[in-house]
Amino acid sequence: MTAVLNQPAPVQASRVMGLGAHRPDVIVDNEQICRWIDSSDEWIRQRTGIVTRHRARPEVSVVDMAEDSAREAIEQAGLTGADVDAVIVATVTHPYQTPSAAAELAHRLGTEAAVAYDISAACAGYCYGIGQADALVRAGTARHVLVVGVEKLSDFIDDHERSMSFLLGDGAGAAVVGPSEEAGISPSLMGSNGEKWGTVSMDGSLLPLRDALAEARRTQDASRLLDAEERLWPTLRQDGPTVFRWAVWEMAKVAQQTLDAAGISAEDLVAFVPHQANIRIIDEMVKQLSLPEHVAVGRDIADAGNTSAASIPLAMHRLVQEDPELSGGLALQIGFGAGLVYGAQVVRLP
Amino acid sequence: MTAVLNQPAPVQASRVMGLGAHRPDVIVDNEQICRWIDSSDEWIRQRTGIVTRHRARPEVSVVDMAEDSAREAIEQAGLTGADVDAVIVATVTHPYQTPSAAAELAHRLGTEAAVAYDISAACAGYCYGIGQADALVRAGTARHVLVVGVEKLSDFIDDHERSMSFLLGDGAGAAVVGPSEEAGISPSLMGSNGEKWGTVSMDGSLLPLRDALAEARRTQDASRLLDAEERLWPTLRQDGPTVFRWAVWEMAKVAQQTLDAAGISAEDLVAFVPHQANIRIIDEMVKQLSLPEHVAVGRDIADAGNTSAASIPLAMHRLVQEDPELSGGLALQIGFGAGLVYGAQVVRLP
Ligand SMILES: CC(C)(COP(=O)(O)OP(=O)(O)OC[C@H]1O[C@@H](n2cnc3c(N)ncnc32)[C@H](O)[C@@H]1OP(=O)(O)O)[C@@H](O)C(=O)NCCC(=O)NCCS
Ligand SMILES: CC(C)(COP(=O)(O)OP(=O)(O)OC[C@H]1O[C@@H](n2cnc3c(N)ncnc32)[C@H](O)[C@@H]1OP(=O)(O)O)[C@@H](O)C(=O)NCCC(=O)NCCS
Repeated sequence: MTAVLNQPAPVQASRVMGLGAHRPDVIVDNEQICRWIDSSDEWIRQRTGIVTRHRARPEVSVVDMAEDSAREAIEQAGLTGADVDAVIVATVTHPYQTPSAAAELAHRLGTEAAVAYDISAACAGYCYGIGQADALVRAGTARHVLVVGVEKLSDFIDDHERSMSFLLGDGAGAAVVGPSEEAGISPSLMGSNGEKWGTVSMDGSLLPLRDALAEARRTQDASRLLDAEERLWPTLRQDGPTVFRWAVWEMAKVAQQTLDAAGISAEDLVAFVPHQANIRIIDEMVKQLSLPEHVAVGRDIADAGNTSAASIPLAMHRLVQEDPELSGGLALQIGFGAGLVYGAQVVRLP
Repeated sequence: MTAVLNQPAPVQASRVMGLGAHRPDVIVDNEQICRWIDSSDEWIRQRTGIVTRHRARPEVSVVDMAEDSAREAIEQAGLTGADVDAVIVATVTHPYQTPSAAAELAHRLGTEAAVAYDISAACAGYCYGIGQADALVRAGTARHVLVVGVEKLSDFIDDHERSMSFLLGDGAGAAVVGPSEEAGISPSLMGSNGEKWGTVSMDGSLLPLRDALAEARRTQDASRLLDAEERLWPTLRQDGPTVFRWAVWEMAKVAQQTLDAAGISAEDLVAFVPHQANIRIIDEMVKQLSLPEHVAVGRDIADAGNTSAASIPLAMHRLVQEDPELSGGLALQIGFGAGLVYGAQVVRLP
């Protein structure tokens, strides 16, 4: 009686076909950081592993960085922009409520009206994007999905804030996911711990700034706007030790569960690429997973700092560039951050 | 030699299991609008079809509205929060760069660490979310996906701005997508026209406001902040006629292609639920699709105005509430907006 709906033909499996990276050219070292906050090069190196972070120049936007990394990934995949039929941009630093960065990026890359949306999942954004790309490809909804993790965190921090800003950098990393006969992406373990919503977050909503501006214009009294004690432009801040413990204990478990779901063991890996939040978190995870010596570990944090959604593709890109023999091997990637949210999967390196 | 990766078991098909709605209780009529802009009740009714729009009170957040609509959708689906394993919030008005609204919502609903992310695809956000949910379920990545379209547009408009603000309202609509033996969601037609990025958008980035605030604090000179001529809090604005033509010509085509991809004709529909942007766009699409008389058409715009990502689930919820016999029939839904982006699919009404 009622009509039957068609379905897209599902696809056997998906894989990562190419990677790309953009590293901004302004370098901020620990010495510079110590002009802003009470700290030391030694403390920062020992407690975080960070030596430098990169920053984009004022005229370089989130979309610019995304575009640069995307072009490399598309080329490495042996494709052109016209072959890309979905663009997912994982970011928390696109400074417009709307439209998305993805819509502009899809246009710049010369896609033919690609699906385009941004996702907000903080430092898990790239792994969330890969999980979505894998599902979109396998479900037959899209064929070639570009996933970009990109952040211009320098726009949303306060250099004089001591809990988090000194960790963060700008950058972009991209991957193209497409159809494959053999599984190139394992089941994605993604989740959230929303009860910890406040442990890494902007220190306030944008709305008090709006209200203060409107009030000042109404009364022609700007004292609140000028009061340096009142933080009106929100900045990222965190309860570092709580996030640290969560990352070390809970994320090592998720990483192990991801290996189990993939049906492989740590022995089968050639690389481990965790989110680059703190070198001690990375080292602790390596220990808890009992990773064998032969597994290359992403330690891009020393150079790049924490670039949120961009950190995993940037670190992975560097590993493969430094050791092309990793190509074709299996890498475990895990992202985690504000939400709190996390996402992980095993991917075959392109 | 190299290990083989497991894959999630794919699922035959997906369907919408339940719907929910939240309509804020502050009503703004055209008379009120005409106190803000040079217009008339008659002009607004004739040119847009809008009689009222709803606004959320200052203390009601995007997450509050989302929660209310989600609880109804989950209950109608016969589930509890613990059954939901992914939460997608489509919104452009969550006033935090991070964390996502979805992470907090997933926690409030009592999910067990559900996948949680926000998507930015403006007025196409809900249909994008349904397309993703369908792929996630069919690919076996998630089982029950909650999709919420929610906006508190009143926070990001300027009542005295004449191109767009008078059209917009607040609200939330939700759907639960789950596994099904028969196809309940047709292939999703999603895409973008990024070359029209500027035709509906915030009228500027947030960064000039940040810079003006920093500069004023440095110099203790607030004149720029106090100058009403300088718009520092960005507002939505549009080139209405361009968007109008695009919607009428291009979106009617996409709607027809969606029917074709679903393998059905307009005769098979019980309902048509386009994004509620303008009653004349809706009427024109009905004409171009040659919809038969028996097809119920979503015309929630008269009461709700344009609620961006919330408009389709709100309009669909009202149709089914007003005529429960529609339940079980096929509805064509199509969203379109800032990006420009669009998304459409046929769904079986729960
Ligand atoms: C932020 C972080 C580096 C702080 O390191 P920590 O060892 O936990 O430091 P604590 O906050 O416990 O503070 C220890 C001491 O260092 C000091 N300290 C904190 N930040 C400092 C800084 N930037 N420079 C110098 N000293 C600092 C504290 O004042 C404290 O001093 P005290 O012992 O005299 O009181 C660490 O908690 C961390 O990396 N957390 C997780 C980060 C993360 O993953 N965040 C993002 C998720 S995406
Ligand atoms: C915004 C919209 C209602 C304007 O209607 P329109 O018929 O295109 O109006 P125009 O902009 O061509 O202007 C026609 C006249 O109406 C006037 N006008 C425009 N806005 C007006 C308002 N809010 N009240 C009264 N008059 C108005 C213009 O000044 C113009 O007057 P003129 O002929 O004396 O110069 C219509 O373009 C529209 O709905 N566009 C698409 C909206 C949409 O879908 N947007 C969101 C996508 S999610």
